[in-house]
Amino acid sequence: MLFFVNDYGYGAHPKVLEHLTETNMQPLTGYGNDEITASAAEKIKAACACPEGQVYFLTGGTQTNMVVIDALLRPYEGVVASSCGHVNTHEAGAIESTGHKVLTVPHRNGKLDADDLREYIETFYADESHNHMVFPGMVYISHPSEYGTLYTKNELERISAVCKAFDLPLFLDGARLGYGLTADTDVTLPDIARLTDVFYIGGTKCGALCGEAVVFTHGNMPRQFETMVKRHGAMVAKGRLNAVQFDALFTDGLYEKICAPAVRLALKLRDGLAAKGYRFAIDSPTNQQFIIVENSRLPELGGKVAYSFIEKYDAEHTVIRLATSWATTEEQVDELLRLL
Amino acid sequence: MLFFVNDYGYGAHPKVLEHLTETNMQPLTGYGNDEITASAAEKIKAACACPEGQVYFLTGGTQTNMVVIDALLRPYEGVVASSCGHVNTHEAGAIESTGHKVLTVPHRNGKLDADDLREYIETFYADESHNHMVFPGMVYISHPSEYGTLYTKNELERISAVCKAFDLPLFLDGARLGYGLTADTDVTLPDIARLTDVFYIGGTKCGALCGEAVVFTHGNMPRQFETMVKRHGAMVAKGRLNAVQFDALFTDGLYEKICAPAVRLALKLRDGLAAKGYRFAIDSPTNQQFIIVENSRLPELGGKVAYSFIEKYDAEHTVIRLATSWATTEEQVDELLRLL
Amino acid sequence: MLFFVNDYGYGAHPKVLEHLTETNMQPLTGYGNDEITASAAEKIKAACACPEGQVYFLTGGTQTNMVVIDALLRPYEGVVASSCGHVNTHEAGAIESTGHKVLTVPHRNGKLDADDLREYIETFYADESHNHMVFPGMVYISHPSEYGTLYTKNELERISAVCKAFDLPLFLDGARLGYGLTADTDVTLPDIARLTDVFYIGGTKCGALCGEAVVFTHGNMPRQFETMVKRHGAMVAKGRLNAVQFDALFTDGLYEKICAPAVRLALKLRDGLAAKGYRFAIDSPTNQQFIIVENSRLPELGGKVAYSFIEKYDAEHTVIRLATSWATTEEQVDELLRLL
Amino acid sequence: MLFFVNDYGYGAHPKVLEHLTETNMQPLTGYGNDEITASAAEKIKAACACPEGQVYFLTGGTQTNMVVIDALLRPYEGVVASSCGHVNTHEAGAIESTGHKVLTVPHRNGKLDADDLREYIETFYADESHNHMVFPGMVYISHPSEYGTLYTKNELERISAVCKAFDLPLFLDGARLGYGLTADTDVTLPDIARLTDVFYIGGTKCGALCGEAVVFTHGNMPRQFETMVKRHGAMVAKGRLNAVQFDALFTDGLYEKICAPAVRLALKLRDGLAAKGYRFAIDSPTNQQFIIVENSRLPELGGKVAYSFIEKYDAEHTVIRLATSWATTEEQVDELLRLL
Repeated sequence: MLFFVNDYGYGAHPKVLEHLTETNMQPLTGYGNDEITASAAEKIKAACACPEGQVYFLTGGTQTNMVVIDALLRPYEGVVASSCGHVNTHEAGAIESTGHKVLTVPHRNGKLDADDLREYIETFYADESHNHMVFPGMVYISHPSEYGTLYTKNELERISAVCKAFDLPLFLDGARLGYGLTADTDVTLPDIARLTDVFYIGGTKCGALCGEAVVFTHGNMPRQFETMVKRHGAMVAKGRLNAVQFDALFTDGLYEKICAPAVRLALKLRDGLAAKGYRFAIDSPTNQQFIIVENSRLPELGGKVAYSFIEKYDAEHTVIRLATSWATTEEQVDELLRLL
Repeated sequence: MLFFVNDYGYGAHPKVLEHLTETNMQPLTGYGNDEITASAAEKIKAACACPEGQVYFLTGGTQTNMVVIDALLRPYEGVVASSCGHVNTHEAGAIESTGHKVLTVPHRNGKLDADDLREYIETFYADESHNHMVFPGMVYISHPSEYGTLYTKNELERISAVCKAFDLPLFLDGARLGYGLTADTDVTLPDIARLTDVFYIGGTKCGALCGEAVVFTHGNMPRQFETMVKRHGAMVAKGRLNAVQFDALFTDGLYEKICAPAVRLALKLRDGLAAKGYRFAIDSPTNQQFIIVENSRLPELGGKVAYSFIEKYDAEHTVIRLATSWATTEEQVDELLRLL
Repeated sequence: MLFFVNDYGYGAHPKVLEHLTETNMQPLTGYGNDEITASAAEKIKAACACPEGQVYFLTGGTQTNMVVIDALLRPYEGVVASSCGHVNTHEAGAIESTGHKVLTVPHRNGKLDADDLREYIETFYADESHNHMVFPGMVYISHPSEYGTLYTKNELERISAVCKAFDLPLFLDGARLGYGLTADTDVTLPDIARLTDVFYIGGTKCGALCGEAVVFTHGNMPRQFETMVKRHGAMVAKGRLNAVQFDALFTDGLYEKICAPAVRLALKLRDGLAAKGYRFAIDSPTNQQFIIVENSRLPELGGKVAYSFIEKYDAEHTVIRLATSWATTEEQVDELLRLL
Repeated sequence: MLFFVNDYGYGAHPKVLEHLTETNMQPLTGYGNDEITASAAEKIKAACACPEGQVYFLTGGTQTNMVVIDALLRPYEGVVASSCGHVNTHEAGAIESTGHKVLTVPHRNGKLDADDLREYIETFYADESHNHMVFPGMVYISHPSEYGTLYTKNELERISAVCKAFDLPLFLDGARLGYGLTADTDVTLPDIARLTDVFYIGGTKCGALCGEAVVFTHGNMPRQFETMVKRHGAMVAKGRLNAVQFDALFTDGLYEKICAPAVRLALKLRDGLAAKGYRFAIDSPTNQQFIIVENSRLPELGGKVAYSFIEKYDAEHTVIRLATSWATTEEQVDELLRLL
């Protein structure tokens, strides 16, 4: 069975596991107050060209979204996101569990559009009864988006400008950031650090067993952030768990080195399928490809390839997702192309 | 520097790390729907002699407490705990963040007493205005307690009987359960499974990098528990993270095998210190020892041993904690005894 | 200045005030455990032809929505509402403050459509990852809707049938129910009691100073509902405040008697404006009329009539709302028609 | 049956009802943006000698406590209260429902002691792990207390000084403030405005049908307080409901004029009972008297007097509460003294 179901099916990249092993018997202070956490944070700040940044390691994506959003919003505020944003659709109400509404703007190609955002905010303030409504308090985007698409630098700059104009923090969910940075893009890690107020670098889907590195980009980590992390049950006693993995991923550019091949293989898959006449539900430049398949072909396919069902396309077609990861091999892609 | 500051200073037991390594490149379904999760759950149910049990793996102790308690309580209920219970003191309000009050009963030697519990509940229902008060909705105990003390089987049976009489689920926090099971005790894992409604087996402090195994003991896992886990940001995409570690810990009795020496060394330390005339703040039969030290000796001690400050004892003395773990060696204890 | 800005600009209907006065010095048990509360509840149950109903008096609409919805939903569930539902738009995130998401379906003429509802639910359950999503846990509709429109009996029956098919409680917000019951409609109070699981009869906008009467229609008031009301700060010490008003409103059919003229006057206004060539943003059969006015006319109008701004219609037109109430007089409507 | 069960058994003081009646048909802007609300606020500010104060009218005591506390605390903070504080005991977990812990200090005679408060805070900050604990974020006291006792001006000044030293807002719950101000006390309304950051003047128990007037004493009303009120379902559409009542109560000193006799009668009752040999559970100088009665006398008493059961005193005695209010008459007290 070929595994293309997602990008979190394998364990950790061998170098990550190796670093866990080699540091294993080193006694460390708990709760992230240790030297490896400090080292990993420094490496990340360097990679972001963001010396004034503050880094905090959490364990998973939904957890990170809820902790960061709850920490930044005032009680009467909500987070603006595109309608397909992960926080709006697949987090089981984690944001609402903290008492905050997700305020949605229809997505365009999986992304939030700066003009739509501005219009949303202006309409809100123009409403005479907006004191009875949930205030937009911050903006959430993901890069790559849920559909694998990417913001251009210009798009990010325009969103950032709207956020600044209305004094709204911009938060970028980088659960799959590695596959975004290594695609055909003009957006770099320092660009993201410059244009957002807080973002996270995804570990779970990009080579780690778990872990997401939150970066507050300009000394803006909320007061007692650590206590708020604990309050959400998100603090790990062994801070090394996440930190050691990021320490490995940000040594010698490992993070991008292992994500780049996944993107290359996804595009090879895309081009190969296109050549065979397959259509795509969305044009994705990253490691997730959304393919329209005839329903009649699914049973046979399912016997040979593990994929994700996304949605019905029409009465006779289905959209499925094929995802590569740092663990995908050239042979697997070639074999898949033969099968499809 | 000798490390006796806590039981989570080292990484994972080598066999745990080994199992993470050997299963690393095995592709697995996400979110705990994989065969290793199933295997680990079966091993735990066998160790608990609890075939009808349901096991769910979470990542940390505070997280586990908040998720389980929030899942079991109705909105108008709180959790009864001893005043020194971890949920009441050191979880940054995680229980309250889910909207529930911690209802406290003064502790006795770190433990909740069955008679105190019964009196609390009876007083509540006798109060004419109890409809305006937070209802006791479940009972939380920890074993070992925060002070390292243990319930006897009889004590657990009596608490369990009170809970049954008032239809209150009993939840046992076993963050350090390994050190409880391997102490001089008449309480076994099957006893705990029989006497509680839900409990967790601590991994983080007992040989794992992270992970706590929640056991619902009689088919009583709340409906859509998984969704509630996700809602609290507590679900890991790579379910293997926690499951593989427990799969190792519950193979060939590793869990108890590695905890037993920690308890033996803690008692060796205790007896050695007692012989030197040291006094103890509490009589602990497990891996945490609470020692009364003259303040004047602390600076010198601090230069050689990493320990935890607990509280002032009087103007001239301080209570410190010395903790052993699966990683503590006989040599370290001997060296510490020489130093003190 | 003519007052057409809303239906809560005046105090209470004189008979309501009179009943508050005549019962004022009668000592009553607190918190709704008094005989007037019991009397008012009986009168409401009789009016609803719902002997097994359970009635609870609350103070305001948003409060009622949040208390009822929070009491009915399980933690992992949200409430399905139309996109223009009051709970989604103008309650400052009150529902989310209780930890629950509002799940929206696009509205049709201000209303939720049964087929849209069914499709929403079926799509949810068809999604392979719905365990990571907020479950639809109940359905919220308002009658009249935010736009003054009404469900037909057939529409309600179809929504009710979908709810029953999926075991979802149906909650009807009747903030303006008096104006709905007395419009040209085939829906009666007993119909509503029969077709919903819980609904409320609005007092604030229909003749009372405050107060909403929640009716659980078939012995389904949640366990310890009273405690949950208290927990939301929604219990009044003097239960008489709301109960006496409803006791008056449900004596000799006062509720409908005072709402009917408001509807008649609103339709007189509508027909008069239509005859003068005005266009309407929506076709409302109740006491709120949504009129499209040229922007250039607004300043003059604003000097003579208090109205509500609703939204821009286009570059040159605005939608305004004119509302009648039990306090509106024929003379005021005639004067308004002269002005417009 | 003589009514001494509480101070909220009757409706509103006749002058309050009269003002509701005389303003009833005056059309007013909704949600508290009307001239009577403004007038009442001005009168209260004048009575408090607090021109920079900001007044907001809410409907009930628990509601007020939860709204104010939630608005003032940061997410990682709790409210410090005495163990018998209403927020800790009889609000059904309303504070916790907003995600905040009530941090308790043992009460002294129903009151919080400044030294106990200071010690609590200092102990918190001295704890090395206080980042894992709930931070004290504000201080709650009630005046009169739950037991009818009063702070002296010196006691308030000392509490206020501790609060200022640690930058903690001081919130005074004045549900029965009228009976506190008119007792034998050196504390005036301007003193309270000067020594607290926010307090409320109770209406429900002091002559109104409902209503509590929150006063932020120095321009410190939280940003978008109104939206947070709405979010808690605590905003009334007809702002007049509460405002008109306070407008009456603060005209010509009505508030104190009607509370003073209640205190005088309570003390007459106290002195009369003391002369007959009755003992008191607490020495209360206000309208609530806590009397120790032989159990054997309760059945007969209960047939003639409505009182509140407080708690068992010992095997043969019970503590009951007798409360007077603005509605209590000299004749009722004389009759009660004859009976007892």
